[in-house]
This record gives sequence, structure tokens and C-alpha cells, in this order.
Amino acid sequence: MMKTRALVLHKARDLRVEEREVGTIGSHQVLLHVGAGGLCGSDIHYFWHGGMGSIRLSEPMILGHEAAGTVEAVGTHVTSVKPGDRVAIDPSRHCGHCRFCLEGMMNQCENMDFHGSAMRKPHSQGLFRDHIIVEERQCLAVGTKASMAEAACMEPLSVALHAVNQAGSLMGRRVLVTGSGPIGALVVAAARLAGALEIVATDIADAPLAAAARLGATTTVNSKDNPDQLNASYAAHKGWFDAAFECTGVGAVLPGIFPVLRPGGTLVQVGVMGDTAVPMNALVAKEISLRGTHRANREYALAAALLRDQRIDVKPILTATLPMDEATRAFDLVRDRSTQLKVQLSFS
Amino acid sequence: MMKTRALVLHKARDLRVEEREVGTIGSHQVLLHVGAGGLCGSDIHYFWHGGMGSIRLSEPMILGHEAAGTVEAVGTHVTSVKPGDRVAIDPSRHCGHCRFCLEGMMNQCENMDFHGSAMRKPHSQGLFRDHIIVEERQCLAVGTKASMAEAACMEPLSVALHAVNQAGSLMGRRVLVTGSGPIGALVVAAARLAGALEIVATDIADAPLAAAARLGATTTVNSKDNPDQLNASYAAHKGWFDAAFECTGVGAVLPGIFPVLRPGGTLVQVGVMGDTAVPMNALVAKEISLRGTHRANREYALAAALLRDQRIDVKPILTATLPMDEATRAFDLVRDRSTQLKVQLSFS
Amino acid sequence: MMKTRALVLHKARDLRVEEREVGTIGSHQVLLHVGAGGLCGSDIHYFWHGGMGSIRLSEPMILGHEAAGTVEAVGTHVTSVKPGDRVAIDPSRHCGHCRFCLEGMMNQCENMDFHGSAMRKPHSQGLFRDHIIVEERQCLAVGTKASMAEAACMEPLSVALHAVNQAGSLMGRRVLVTGSGPIGALVVAAARLAGALEIVATDIADAPLAAAARLGATTTVNSKDNPDQLNASYAAHKGWFDAAFECTGVGAVLPGIFPVLRPGGTLVQVGVMGDTAVPMNALVAKEISLRGTHRANREYALAAALLRDQRIDVKPILTATLPMDEATRAFDLVRDRSTQLKVQLSFS
Amino acid sequence: MMKTRALVLHKARDLRVEEREVGTIGSHQVLLHVGAGGLCGSDIHYFWHGGMGSIRLSEPMILGHEAAGTVEAVGTHVTSVKPGDRVAIDPSRHCGHCRFCLEGMMNQCENMDFHGSAMRKPHSQGLFRDHIIVEERQCLAVGTKASMAEAACMEPLSVALHAVNQAGSLMGRRVLVTGSGPIGALVVAAARLAGALEIVATDIADAPLAAAARLGATTTVNSKDNPDQLNASYAAHKGWFDAAFECTGVGAVLPGIFPVLRPGGTLVQVGVMGDTAVPMNALVAKEISLRGTHRANREYALAAALLRDQRIDVKPILTATLPMDEATRAFDLVRDRSTQLKVQLSFS
Repeated sequence: MMKTRALVLHKARDLRVEEREVGTIGSHQVLLHVGAGGLCGSDIHYFWHGGMGSIRLSEPMILGHEAAGTVEAVGTHVTSVKPGDRVAIDPSRHCGHCRFCLEGMMNQCENMDFHGSAMRKPHSQGLFRDHIIVEERQCLAVGTKASMAEAACMEPLSVALHAVNQAGSLMGRRVLVTGSGPIGALVVAAARLAGALEIVATDIADAPLAAAARLGATTTVNSKDNPDQLNASYAAHKGWFDAAFECTGVGAVLPGIFPVLRPGGTLVQVGVMGDTAVPMNALVAKEISLRGTHRANREYALAAALLRDQRIDVKPILTATLPMDEATRAFDLVRDRSTQLKVQLSFS
Repeated sequence: MMKTRALVLHKARDLRVEEREVGTIGSHQVLLHVGAGGLCGSDIHYFWHGGMGSIRLSEPMILGHEAAGTVEAVGTHVTSVKPGDRVAIDPSRHCGHCRFCLEGMMNQCENMDFHGSAMRKPHSQGLFRDHIIVEERQCLAVGTKASMAEAACMEPLSVALHAVNQAGSLMGRRVLVTGSGPIGALVVAAARLAGALEIVATDIADAPLAAAARLGATTTVNSKDNPDQLNASYAAHKGWFDAAFECTGVGAVLPGIFPVLRPGGTLVQVGVMGDTAVPMNALVAKEISLRGTHRANREYALAAALLRDQRIDVKPILTATLPMDEATRAFDLVRDRSTQLKVQLSFS
Repeated sequence: MMKTRALVLHKARDLRVEEREVGTIGSHQVLLHVGAGGLCGSDIHYFWHGGMGSIRLSEPMILGHEAAGTVEAVGTHVTSVKPGDRVAIDPSRHCGHCRFCLEGMMNQCENMDFHGSAMRKPHSQGLFRDHIIVEERQCLAVGTKASMAEAACMEPLSVALHAVNQAGSLMGRRVLVTGSGPIGALVVAAARLAGALEIVATDIADAPLAAAARLGATTTVNSKDNPDQLNASYAAHKGWFDAAFECTGVGAVLPGIFPVLRPGGTLVQVGVMGDTAVPMNALVAKEISLRGTHRANREYALAAALLRDQRIDVKPILTATLPMDEATRAFDLVRDRSTQLKVQLSFS
Repeated sequence: MMKTRALVLHKARDLRVEEREVGTIGSHQVLLHVGAGGLCGSDIHYFWHGGMGSIRLSEPMILGHEAAGTVEAVGTHVTSVKPGDRVAIDPSRHCGHCRFCLEGMMNQCENMDFHGSAMRKPHSQGLFRDHIIVEERQCLAVGTKASMAEAACMEPLSVALHAVNQAGSLMGRRVLVTGSGPIGALVVAAARLAGALEIVATDIADAPLAAAARLGATTTVNSKDNPDQLNASYAAHKGWFDAAFECTGVGAVLPGIFPVLRPGGTLVQVGVMGDTAVPMNALVAKEISLRGTHRANREYALAAALLRDQRIDVKPILTATLPMDEATRAFDLVRDRSTQLKVQLSFS
């Protein structure tokens, strides 16, 4: 029986490389050699805090839901990929039968089994391992031009695309993105792809802002250095922006968006946050829509296609790659926002 | 020069009947004898507290923006109404030239002059007087079947219709309305008109719930007597309601709506409230849209047409009428939610 | 083995009552005693012409896709209905796995097996028989108030609801319905349910117009007696109606709708017709949306709920019921539009 | 009084350079020196046929509604432009007061006075002259990077953007554009801007297809050489494209789009055509939306901004520029689709 190394979190700050069995390939399954995997916000919360909100690690769990790999073998009924193909992994294992799946809202699946998530018990094991068997449906071909590192950005890119899809057509629109970390920067790229005329990106660090500029932001604002700039420049005539994407997940940022968002505008909350004070007077008087966005649906396939066709260049967010056995150092490094956006792991 | 009695608020709890000049009828204007006027939440705030939030009474102001009357004379160019016609008064004097007016969002007019509002200085004088001259455009014919009291409900009905329009088509949908005061009860009626299959209305008093039931609620919940009923009945499978309308304006009510609203559902905030804690985790994870609604646009004309055609019966919310010179007693009475919904004044 | 009588069409005008086996009840299936079945346009085309367009009868087929019945027995896993329950039958057997089903567009299912349709080979056998076994999912409870005849209108009502859903919210809108046969009349009822302010219904016979008036039309126009009335009354200012529903299926009717539909309006084509001359100049200049509607999706359940709750009264379209063995006479009778709308069969 | 040369059409094929008075600059007006003007389909119809459909030339008319120029002088109240500024001219003089203007549908203005159009009498004089006085509102600044020739493409680009806006968000969508003349090619560019993943452009000539490829088409199809290619490649599984834009204005092209458009897809008719046979069976069964698009609204400003910011490069459609006094030759040249897309005139 084939073995693989896997990156297993036992409790907060206790991350170990362990050996696991790979299993046997089912007729509709694919064996992948994982090439790259990115650290996402939830991985970081699991590592440092053992969970987030009510979702807590209660047993050892392999981390990771952003990854890409190369096909090594395929099951007897697999037709869409073949050995040697390079694929991004769709981590969303939805049931396909609940009422949400049947409405095309697979991200709301009542039986979701999402790689590297502690929401279910037993937990859904993640993608940070050298080898893994996944369903054929999870393998999204990325062609030959995108690197493994770029392909592993498929999942966060799909999240950004799904966020942008919550705001209707952005062609010719004025867009604000608060927070230019990996997700915020990719939201900038997605808004640019969608034809936004003007994209203002904010952050409290310069490195993310530089990445946002490379991905399509027309203006960047360091809101630590210039806390009043947004309001001074964009609040006249009831607000400048047609749409805003809140990607910091910091509750204190939210109220500052309302004065610069035009009446009837849409504020998409992308970052996860707990109970937060919302200026309801402004929301009501300006008839603003504050809406949430959660993971992705058909945007997984779109993200893979965009990377395959080189329509979006994600390299500006790729700041470091460490080998799997230095994962603990990677979780340390990723907290340095002055230099880091997306930190990835490599496998062998 | 013709004189009229007017109901002038000088400061909180200092309401006086005073004499004012009526003025002269312009070519596009209409002289009305006011027949009935309803006390709205903002009137009540002005009377008891001298304003709400940052909007404060700073000079004497005639109250009132819900009223109906009979045409007594018309200007030389007026064609749509004639003496004897009975009309509801559209209180929204928008400029017709700003960018919002030209997009059909007159309620966001940058130069709005709304009757009985202290937002501008000098304040916009209100409708609580025996006679008034208004623009022809403000006169919405209500025919002969609706009473003056019913016609004076045109404005709050238009607010309810506008709120319902924020949620897209409600045909066949499941709807929650929290708070069954005059606006909540009319939202029930509007949702019923729009074809909602199921309408659950809540309140902490029985009288409003009884009105809501008469206006189309399929279930009523006294949330004071049964604080857990909503959650117990409607939270399964990620939530039952397609749309919710929050009409209490009480911040503490808002979080309880999220568990019973289905993923992708819409929560329309109708009641005005200040900064309020919102469970953003739920908003994000369930991709809920929380959107504000403010006054009305083309719904003024629709409300008048519905009253004219007797398509909506507003009588269940009409609980008391007092003569103009007992207005102070009316403002006292309206606070008794165990018996009162809409309290109106009559003029002579 | 249980037997049932069935109404089998062998070729155009050759309709026979034959004996068939009922089969055995699967664990998720239900045995129904059929109570009533309605003749639909496609049944009529099969009977008189052996098909419509490219869909031709090539083997004997039991007719019927509009029916209701009483549960006689249920499979071991059935939970939602029990013997004695009265149900409308959802005739749409979609696969639940193709890309359209997974987007909630079951009516576009690539593997659709719709009762009483010759589109597939072997043909999908229909519902006109005394007894039938269907899937639990197809059984939509209609409660105790709706008659069998009314319950059998669930399917055409769902078609009308689906048509109305193509036009967005109709609350307060002005609606035109051309053709007041069974579907047109139910579109009137659905538009009324959805809150349309004004509904003008046309036909060339008075009986359907009378039904349309009872179902909510505010104005009826006999377009045979008054061919110019629509244009004379509703063409000013680029057109009066916000939405139009073309239910005649007569190509010559279509062009006359464009002058009375406002710019940006929606024209929903409900009736089936072949290649038809469309005034594209008007469609382009007025930016009209001409869109098709096909059967129903979640509207099946809604139609059953509306009949159960007596929210829509379909009795005005029920004009005749004949016993199954007089089916040939029923197909003759239904062609008399001066007296007939929906002709139904009864079973025993 | 200042004079200008103007290009006046007296009747079909009778185009003359004549002298006209420029007039005096009103307080909100601007004097422009026209730099470039493009020949559009309507100009071509006026020149060769004296009109199109029911719109006929009945008096001499200056042609032209696509033009850009340089500000020479401004009225006393003009604030947004100054002498020396380079502007594209918005040819849409809408009233700002009719019900359509007040809904933001200025292109449907009941009192439209569109430059170079014979729809009104007296006709609306056009832009093909050396000097012209226009309203400040018509002057859309294009900055310093776009050439006059590019700036004169503002109007057709706005038409393409408006067309694309009829189809909702195109991000990640599959798009078909039939006809790659100037408008079709710009629709390709607009769809690309809006984030379409795949854009298939057709034409019967290779030069337009080459331009479409440069503007963002991912595949081009010469439908004269390969009449079956669309159907062979894109009809499986009920059709490949999410949206189609018909830009040929040739009725025979329309039916071929239905098989390759997916159920629920949108077909935007951009080219103007008369009564046309539409396969209504397919429109109904696949629930396709066929909708018209007419000129532009807020897209004028967007087009100018896109040219100013060099977000869309219109140079691929610019194939020839002739001096004003060779205009007749220009109208001859533009009919050679093997070499020409947009033919422009220069002024002095």
C-alpha cells in the first residue's frame, strides 16, 4: 500500500509531518502528486488558535484546501484527465442532492465535506501531502503555462471571483477594496477582469498595496498613514463607489465604507468577522446592500480556466515557498504583512 | 389673504395651533382642504424628543407628511385634477435635476424638500393644516371610494411598497415581518399583494398582530410571550424564510432574524436604528443581503392607485382620529401600542 | 397483478380504452387512484394531428400530463404522503444529475421523461388511467378543500406561474395577456396574484374573456370584434404595458403587441408557435425583451400550495367533465371555444 | 459671424460641402474645432438610399453623429472643459424631463434631438463640419493620449458597451458575436473588457475577423467559407454560448444562433433589421431572451473614459481617413468590406 507524508495539525502550534496511507484509486478517482499548496486564513487560524469562532479542532487534521498537482494515475472510468496532466484541486466536496446543490448553490450544501475543515466530525482531511486521491470532478486542468504555484492559487482566486459576482456587473464601475492581502488583491484582479473602470485598494502595509497595484488597482491608499484620505476624496455627493469589497475582516473598517459608497451601492463582506457594529442609519437612508460571500461555486472552473489561459496573473501575490517540512516556519513567516502575501508549501 | 390653522412644533412637547397665510396659487399649483393626516414615527420623534439622531428641530416647524385632502382651486395650467377631486398628497418635493433624480432614485435627491422634515434649514414645513397649496405633481387622485382617512395612508403604504420592492419578486415566497406597527402591518399587506405564500408577522403586543392578520399574515407570533418560537419553528435546514422585513427599528431584534433566513435570502431593514451589532459571521456564511429602504419613489402613485381601486384595505391599522386641536393628546395616545396603530388628525 | 384502464392513442383520432398492468410499488413510490385529468394543448395536437412540429407519435401512447388523484398505497420508504391523501401529480421526471438540473433548471433536463410526451422513444406514457404508480416526489399534497378537478389544474397553473416568473416582479405593473384560453386565463390569475395593478386580457371569443375577468383581468378586449382597440387605447407615449404574455400561439398576434409595450418592457411568449415574423425594428428601438417560457420548475410545488390554500380559484376555467370512455367526445368538445376552456376527464 | 464648412446631404448620393454659420456661444455652450468624424451605418444608409425604413431624408441635412474635436472657446458658465481640451462629442440631446429621461433611459427620450438624424422635422443637423457649437454636457474629455480618430470612436464604442450591458455580467461567460464590422468588433472589445472567457466572432470577410481577433476574439469563424462550423462546434448539449450579439443586421443570420445558445441564454439584437422570421419554437423551448439594444446612455461617459485611460484600443477598426471634401469617395470606399471597417473624415 502506497504511503504519503502529510502535514497534520494536532493542536494549536503542534504541526507534524506524518505518514499516511494513500488508499486505492476508485473508478472515478485520480491519484495526484501534489505540487504546491497555499496557506489560507483558515489554515492560519487553525495553526495559531486551534480554530475560529465555534469551529474548533477536536482531533488531528491534515491542513490545506489550496493546492495543485500532477496526475499520476486515474481510475477506470476517468475520461477528463490523464497521467501527466496538471490540475488545480477543487476542495469542495458537495453532496449534489440537497436542496442547495440542486439550486446551483453548492457552497451552501447541507452535507459539505470541504478539505481541511474542522466543521464536520470526523474532520475533513486536507490537501497538504505529497500524494492524494481525489474525485475526477475535483481535478480542474490548468494546461502547461501556469506554474504549480500559480495553479495552487485557483481556490483563493475562485473566492475572489465569487465575491465579485455578488455585486452584479462591474463593467465601468468604481470599486473600493479594503484590505489588500491575498484575497483582497485577488478581488482587485477579479474586479479588473470584470471591467471596473476605477479600483481603489486600501491596506495598512505597503507590500500588499504594491501587489494590488500590479493586479489592477488604479489608486492605492495606505489607511494607516492616511486615515482620512478615503473620506476626503470620495464622500462628496453621497459617495463615489458603486461597489465595495471588505476584505480585512476587521470590524472597525466597515463603518468607514458607508460614507464613500453611493446610494443603492453594494458592500460585499468578504473577510470573516464576528458581531460587528454597522451604521444602520446610513444603510437605511442610502439603501445600501450589505451582503456576504462564501467560498465559490462555478467560479472554481472559471478560476482554473483563467489561470490556464493566463488571463489573470497571480504572481504578484506569491511571496514565498517553503518545503513541507518547514511548515511551522511558514506559518510564522505569513504573519509578516510587511513582506508576505501568499506563502506556499512545496511537496515532493 | 387666506389664512389657515397649522400645527406648529416649537420644541419637544410644545405643539401649538397657529394661524398662517395660505399663499397664492401658482399656475402649476393646487389649493387643498386637508381632510386627514396621520402621525408617523418621525412626527412622534419630533414631538417627544425634538428630533432623531443628528436631525434636530432648530426652528418652529409645521408637522406632518401623511395627509389627504380635497381640491378647492387649481392654477391656470393644472390639468390632472379639478375642484372637488380627492387626493393623497405626495410629500416628496425632489428637484428633478440631480443625478439621483435622473436615475429614477428621487428618494435620494440631493436637494430633497420633504414636507415636515427638519433635515434642511429652513425646515420643510409640513401638512398638518386646514388648507395648503401644493404642486400639481403632488396630488394623487384617490377616487371616490377611499375615505380621507384611508387616503391619508398613501404615504406609509408607499413606504411599505418600496420596502417590498427591495426584495425582488415575492410571488410564492415565505416572508417574515418583525414588528407589526403601522409600517410593519402595511408591509404585510404589500407582501400579500405581491403574492407571498406565507407571511409570519411578529410583535410584542397583540393589537398590531391582530391588524397584521387582517392584512394578510398567515401566522402571527407574539415574541414577548413566545421569544423562542421563531427559532424553534423556522431555523431548520439553514432557515425557512426567503425574505425578512425588519420593522421594529430595535437593534436587538436583528440578530434573531439571521438563523431563520435561508442562505441567499434578503433582509430589508425598514425601521430606522443607530449603530447595531450585526452577526457578520452568519451574514457572510449564508450570503445574506441586508439592505436598507428609504421612503418611496414611483410607489407613491402605486399606493394611491391601490387605495383608489380598493386593492389594499388599510382600515385595520386606523385606530383613532382626533381633531387637530387635540393633537397633543393624539401624540400621547399613539404611544399606547396595546390599542393603537395609526392615529390620525382631522382638520376643518 | 393489478390492472388498470388506460387511454391509449394509436394514431391521430384513434384513441382507445385499453387494459394495462399497474406494476409493483417501489420503496419510494406511490399508487394513486386518478381522480381527474385535464386535456392540454399537446394532448389535443396528438389526438387531432398525431403530434406537433417535429414531435410525432410513432407508437401507442397513453395521453395526459395534467392529473390529480388519491393515494391508495405507498412504498416502504415513503414519508410525505399516506393512503387517503389527495395529491396533484408533478409530471416532470427530470434526472437530477445533468448540468441543467444542478442549476435548478429542471425543465431543461437533458434526460427529461415527461408523462404523456412523444419526444422520447419509447414515448413517456401519460396519466390518463384509473390507477398509476408514480414517484413520491411527484405527489404534491393539495389538502382537503380543493376538488379533484381543481387539483388537476396544478400543472397548467404551474405553467402560468413560471411564465409570470419570467417577467420579474409584477407588483403594481400593467400587464397584457393575449389569448384567454386555459393557459392565458391562468396567466391572468398568476399576474393578479403577483400584484399586477392592471391586467388587460384579449381573446376572439367571449367565454374565455368572461373567465379571464373572473380570474382578475381589469379589462377584457374581444379582438375579433374590436381589432383596433389595443392600439387605440394603449400605444400612446411609446406604449402602456410593462409586460405582455402571448398565450394564443398565433404568429399574427405577436406584431400587434410591440406598439403597446413600453420601452424596456418584457414580452413573454407562452404559446408555442413555429417560425414567426417579428418586428425587429421595434424590438431593437424600444429595447424590448422577447423571452420564452417552458413548463415549470419550483412552480409545481407553488401551484399545489396555492390550490391547497385556495389562494387561486381555478373554477372559472373548468367548463366540462366527461368520463374516460367518452374521451373522443371530449377532444371534440374542447375545440368549441365559444363554450369551453378546460375540459377534463373523470376516472373510476 | 463665424462660418464653417459643412457636409450636407441633399438627397441620396448628393452630398455637398457648403458654408454655414456657426452661431453664437451660449453661456452653457462650447465651440469646437472638429478633428475627426466616423461614417456610421445610418450615414451610409442616408447617403446611398436617402434613409432607412420609414425614416427618410426630406430636407438637406448635415450628416454625422460620431465625432471628436478640440475646444476653441467656452460660454461664461462652462466649468468642465476649457480651450485646448480634446473631447468626444455626445450626440444625444435628450430633454431631461420626459418620463424616460427621469428613469435614466435617456435613449428612449420622447423628445430626442440626435445629431445627424432625419427622424424629426426639421431634421437634427449633424457633426460633419469644421466648427460646431454644442452643449457643455455633450463634451466628454478624452485626455491627451487618445488620437482624434480614436476619440471619434467614442459613440460606436458606447453603442457596443450598451449592447453588452443588456446581457448582464459577462465575467467568465462564453460569448458569440455575429458580424465583425465596426460595431461587432467593438462589441468583441466590450465583451472582452467585461471579462468574457471565450469570444467567438463571425463574419463573411477576413479583414473584420482579423480586427475582431486583435480586439479580443478567442476564435474567429468565416461563415462564408465555413457555413456549418458554428453548428458543428457549439450545438451539443443544447448550446454552448451564454450570450450572443447579432451585429450583422441580416435576418437570415438570426435563426442559426438559436441552436448554439444555451437554455436561458440571451441574444442581444444590435444590428437593425426589418420584420424577421424568428424560430419561436426554439425561443420558447429553450427560454431564450431576445432583446434589443438602442444607442447608449451612461455608456457615452464610460466610452470616453475608456479611451482616455487607453483601456480599449480602437485602432484595429480604423482603416481609412479621407479629407472632408472627399466624403463621397469615403462613402464608396466604406462599402468594400474586404479592406474597410471604420472610415473616417478629417476636418480643417
